[in-house]
Amino acid sequence: MKTASPIVPDNHSSSTICRGCWDQMRMPIPIRGPLALPFRVFGITRSKMNPDICTICERAFHYVKKQRQVTAVATILFADIRGFTDLSERIEAVKLSRIVSLFQDSCAQAIWAHDGIVNKQMGDGLMAIFNFPIVRKDHAGAAIMAALDIQRACTAALNGLNADIDGLPDRMLGVGVGIHTGDVQIGEFSSFRSDFTAIGGVVNLAARLESQAAAGEILVSAETAAQAPSLTAGTELRPLMLKGIEQQVQARVLIKS
Amino acid sequence: MKTASPIVPDNHSSSTICRGCWDQMRMPIPIRGPLALPFRVFGITRSKMNPDICTICERAFHYVKKQRQVTAVATILFADIRGFTDLSERIEAVKLSRIVSLFQDSCAQAIWAHDGIVNKQMGDGLMAIFNFPIVRKDHAGAAIMAALDIQRACTAALNGLNADIDGLPDRMLGVGVGIHTGDVQIGEFSSFRSDFTAIGGVVNLAARLESQAAAGEILVSAETAAQAPSLTAGTELRPLMLKGIEQQVQARVLIKS
Repeated sequence: MKTASPIVPDNHSSSTICRGCWDQMRMPIPIRGPLALPFRVFGITRSKMNPDICTICERAFHYVKKQRQVTAVATILFADIRGFTDLSERIEAVKLSRIVSLFQDSCAQAIWAHDGIVNKQMGDGLMAIFNFPIVRKDHAGAAIMAALDIQRACTAALNGLNADIDGLPDRMLGVGVGIHTGDVQIGEFSSFRSDFTAIGGVVNLAARLESQAAAGEILVSAETAAQAPSLTAGTELRPLMLKGIEQQVQARVLIKS
Repeated sequence: MKTASPIVPDNHSSSTICRGCWDQMRMPIPIRGPLALPFRVFGITRSKMNPDICTICERAFHYVKKQRQVTAVATILFADIRGFTDLSERIEAVKLSRIVSLFQDSCAQAIWAHDGIVNKQMGDGLMAIFNFPIVRKDHAGAAIMAALDIQRACTAALNGLNADIDGLPDRMLGVGVGIHTGDVQIGEFSSFRSDFTAIGGVVNLAARLESQAAAGEILVSAETAAQAPSLTAGTELRPLMLKGIEQQVQARVLIKS
């Protein structure tokens, strides 16, 4: 159930116009093909956050939204490699960097395939946003689907390393994911950076859920699960007390299949 | 005790050439004044990470270092707002964004004043690197000085908000800082992002130290403290067990004056 935008093909990484500029402003900015060339001269290219959006979306938020910050409903996904600190004490930095590259690339492909953006990368972790700037009514479901793809891709990619890298622990490397949906504040939050991000209680709760997810687990908040019942029905319900959050949180636990 | 580079003035934010390109390649790239104009046409401008370096340093690491990743000695600083998750549950997102902006701007000024770069911003937190790409032999001391400035500036800025923002807790808002020095892996760690970062055990330990710092505290590792004895002598020694790190860590505790 995607937003109808007839000139934008459904398949990711192949849109000829920026899907963010289209969804936010109904403005067709060419990002692929010959029409994209004159834009490139002015520095407007595909964004690193998602190859279906352009650098206007990434670096000119105040222009796109006519204000520095807006409140919007979004689904926030955090993922990171479990036990990475422990691992980073045991194996060489050069090998660590291969693991980080594999993780970041696998996650990005999964997130882009479901119209999310890789908003922040922090070493062995990342934060993704769904429903901005590419609008998807089913953003909660899209994030869960991306998380399942992340678990599948990372399991394959990281375990492929086990044979190559001496010193890896016997247990397999694994990834933890946390997802939460709600109102976030999206915009530019420092006077010297032009790239946008999301902040607020919803973002923090998603991060806290991720921190509690074991290797291979996806912890989904009740709010996200309620918007994607077909993906979460019948899954384990886990009550959690999270740092800085007063109320107990009822998380759904999805395990990689 | 800065690296001698006679044409680069000592004062931050006023160098006419990129200090990163100079320190890494002995290449004078104009970033201010009329000579900078032709470079701007090709998209080479001042970096958001530090206004004394250019976008070549930020986005063309493989060109600067002739490889995708290098091992280098650096000091890593993490800072974040204590109790932010709790706060984000209590006050409006619009007010939160003012706090985040004040924090990010205050920290950046302090980090730049001591030749560090703001490598990552993550909502109410950030990661800074000292000694790359701007070389400073006294990078451990520079990071500690920046942390002391962060504490001073954030205390002033955040407490100035207390009168303005209803719902702030009675206790003052505060910032925690963690600092560690050692070999890190610096470079590009995903095939789709061109901005560089640092990874490795040293980075993770700095992050863990920050997570243990109370509001107003700067936790400095023994390795960093050993390189800046005049700044750390006589301070509290706190043994810490940190998640994912087997050995007990002996941290020095600096309190904002």
